[in-house]
Amino acid sequence: MTDKTAGQGPPEQPPVVSIARLAEHVDKTVRLRGWLYNQRGSKKLNFLELRDGTGVVQCIAFKGDLTEELWETSGAVTQESSLDVVGQVRAHPKKPGVFEIGVEHITVIGKSDDYPISPKDHGTDFLMDHRHLWLRSRRQHSIIRIRHAIIQAIRTFFDSREFTLVDAPIFTPNACEGTSTLFETDYHGQPAFLTQSGQLYMEAASAAFGKAYCFGPTFRAEKSKTRRHLAEFWMVEPEVAFMDLDGDMQLAEDFLCAIASHVLETRIDELEQLGRDTSKLEAIRAPFPRITYHEAIEILQKAGHDAKPGDDFGGDEETVISSEFDRPVIVHRYPAALKAFYMKKDPENPELALCMDVLAPEGYGEIIGGGQREDSLETLVSAIERHSLPMPAFEWFLDLRRYGTFPHAGFGLGIERTVAWLCGLPHVRETIPFPRMLSRLSP
Amino acid sequence: MTDKTAGQGPPEQPPVVSIARLAEHVDKTVRLRGWLYNQRGSKKLNFLELRDGTGVVQCIAFKGDLTEELWETSGAVTQESSLDVVGQVRAHPKKPGVFEIGVEHITVIGKSDDYPISPKDHGTDFLMDHRHLWLRSRRQHSIIRIRHAIIQAIRTFFDSREFTLVDAPIFTPNACEGTSTLFETDYHGQPAFLTQSGQLYMEAASAAFGKAYCFGPTFRAEKSKTRRHLAEFWMVEPEVAFMDLDGDMQLAEDFLCAIASHVLETRIDELEQLGRDTSKLEAIRAPFPRITYHEAIEILQKAGHDAKPGDDFGGDEETVISSEFDRPVIVHRYPAALKAFYMKKDPENPELALCMDVLAPEGYGEIIGGGQREDSLETLVSAIERHSLPMPAFEWFLDLRRYGTFPHAGFGLGIERTVAWLCGLPHVRETIPFPRMLSRLSP
Repeated sequence: MTDKTAGQGPPEQPPVVSIARLAEHVDKTVRLRGWLYNQRGSKKLNFLELRDGTGVVQCIAFKGDLTEELWETSGAVTQESSLDVVGQVRAHPKKPGVFEIGVEHITVIGKSDDYPISPKDHGTDFLMDHRHLWLRSRRQHSIIRIRHAIIQAIRTFFDSREFTLVDAPIFTPNACEGTSTLFETDYHGQPAFLTQSGQLYMEAASAAFGKAYCFGPTFRAEKSKTRRHLAEFWMVEPEVAFMDLDGDMQLAEDFLCAIASHVLETRIDELEQLGRDTSKLEAIRAPFPRITYHEAIEILQKAGHDAKPGDDFGGDEETVISSEFDRPVIVHRYPAALKAFYMKKDPENPELALCMDVLAPEGYGEIIGGGQREDSLETLVSAIERHSLPMPAFEWFLDLRRYGTFPHAGFGLGIERTVAWLCGLPHVRETIPFPRMLSRLSP
Repeated sequence: MTDKTAGQGPPEQPPVVSIARLAEHVDKTVRLRGWLYNQRGSKKLNFLELRDGTGVVQCIAFKGDLTEELWETSGAVTQESSLDVVGQVRAHPKKPGVFEIGVEHITVIGKSDDYPISPKDHGTDFLMDHRHLWLRSRRQHSIIRIRHAIIQAIRTFFDSREFTLVDAPIFTPNACEGTSTLFETDYHGQPAFLTQSGQLYMEAASAAFGKAYCFGPTFRAEKSKTRRHLAEFWMVEPEVAFMDLDGDMQLAEDFLCAIASHVLETRIDELEQLGRDTSKLEAIRAPFPRITYHEAIEILQKAGHDAKPGDDFGGDEETVISSEFDRPVIVHRYPAALKAFYMKKDPENPELALCMDVLAPEGYGEIIGGGQREDSLETLVSAIERHSLPMPAFEWFLDLRRYGTFPHAGFGLGIERTVAWLCGLPHVRETIPFPRMLSRLSP
């Protein structure tokens, strides 16, 4: 790209490079542009940690190398001031892969006075109020880059398996299952609701494309304040024609293994920066244990929980069940009464649904929910009537059973919970760049 | 995947394959599952066009090869019935790369009676009402697959250039520039607005990551009914620290060339199916012409338009300007008065903004808008005051100028307009799986 800030720099024009690419310029003079992350100095040396978004490098200003003015500039730079630094790239004498810059010239582009986030501890609310600045920290940087790698792995997985991306709509016309957790808006005179799941649309898509997925934001107006819930979160939802529950469990297993190995391959530095025990991620390998709902109840009872058949699992129960295993566990065939009306019943026991949840280890709970969908028109119509749902809202969905019905299955994976799990974070609030929670709508 | 519909099939179990992969199974017996796309028959032969989402293949049922029952089944299959077909893969005698199936067994999985979309012409409203079924047509299939390829190209482009994906929030707390085109919702007791652009957030992201982009749905409650507007549309927005307007134009040019060549490389069949003149896409090559706003005015005047300096361009003007060129044209340095308050003024002429629009050829109009952002705190504060905008809503945005301000630039590209352009479609309504327009909120 052309350089229009030249007037601020030194007369000579060495190439602008990124910190991530310093290895390609050892012993050469380069130009870096970024922000001051940290600084310390002595009588003859100033050590400036410069970050440019691709990495952090130590720039060493030696008094003997610089004019009086430049030496003073190097000592007076404040945290998060934007800088233009020219200097020689030197390989660190002891640490392979680490480089330093011997400063030859330094220009302050934008001075930063009283940067609000200092190295001292701040409360979470303060940091969240300054999310636009907090994102500059090493820790947030690592989390967002791991998030990006997870999203890359998700898209690569489905694209390489011939899935077609079919974006589901955000605005939906009906509050199919009640309005209590839906965000509503006035859509040119009629009410519209923000999507909670693209699944019904993906069922239509799987009849058109065989294998389809959607990936976008979803919304939940829940009043609960927990470490696992956001009002706005991203979800990926594959749906496959002619796939049954066994195929669905296999797909989920392959999928999570692909995500974990991509993150390990590409983001090991970031995982280390977060202090993540990577052996926990290396354990995410096939085969995943697959247990029935009733086996899960037995695990709970053995652990002293007073769980009984028919109970749904909350976060506590999920933690107990998943702590039996070192990798994700698939729990299948929950009581149909606990699950959505569109789940197919198990032909061998119609009290059970052909559904599955994947519980992440280390107490991270449900990260995937899915199953095989009811494909009989009559059974689905009865289910809609029994649940007292508005039939007209489902006419298009019933069309999928009227015109060439087909067995099919799919699942949904929540991105933020997956990021929290792989990064080892106690709360989802740091897993998305600008979190939206019960009491958080800004910045 | 495991097969649980085996009971419905023939006793032997040939492998289930996808139509896209038939080349790997020539002269072998395979099993296909899909839907009847079309059918014709004679006394001894029934030709069944089967689609499975990966392609369409002709299955030939020969009376002499089949039992009476199977022969009758093959003749009675109705449009969009779901089928299980076993047969031998044969290379087409004359067309290389085309295959046929010699039917050995056929099972109807789900019968389809009176499929509403027949080969005859239907009105657009009827087709839109049946969007969940219309997606099964060859034409819609081609469009959505090209859309998918465009999205893949976008992500690959930014990921390979070391951009970090930083998802912008959908819920925003302030109606910064008026509420007239904003969708509003009740966010736990306070108003929230659905995003129209992630740009301000990407400016914060570029200070954290150097190069950042967001990609997600955006919303506009416009009352206008045009062929270019959707209420819900997807947008990708890169933002780069230390990049100026020249760099921004270069990035947009590289970006559009990468998208066009990826679509040509991977979706030539779909383009042909749509009847697209691919020579128009082959022309999308660097360098793109770059003209100033005032040169654009001259083009309009020469073409007989009564345009005068200071006028904004609508669809008609964009068509006239872009029809002078065989590839996208970049128009830069519009009057600052026509552009948003955050655009940086041209230091050589403060009446002009350092902004640019990219107009697609063939009358497709603006597909990219962007520019360099104002990086002076004082100038930005004055602009907010002059536009009578609510200062508190912009405090976090102003922080980016308080703490290490930096030159930066970026742009936004609308996905649906890009799909319409590359596919050669007259209207954006077919470019997204489930369009949302002024009078369209379902299915």
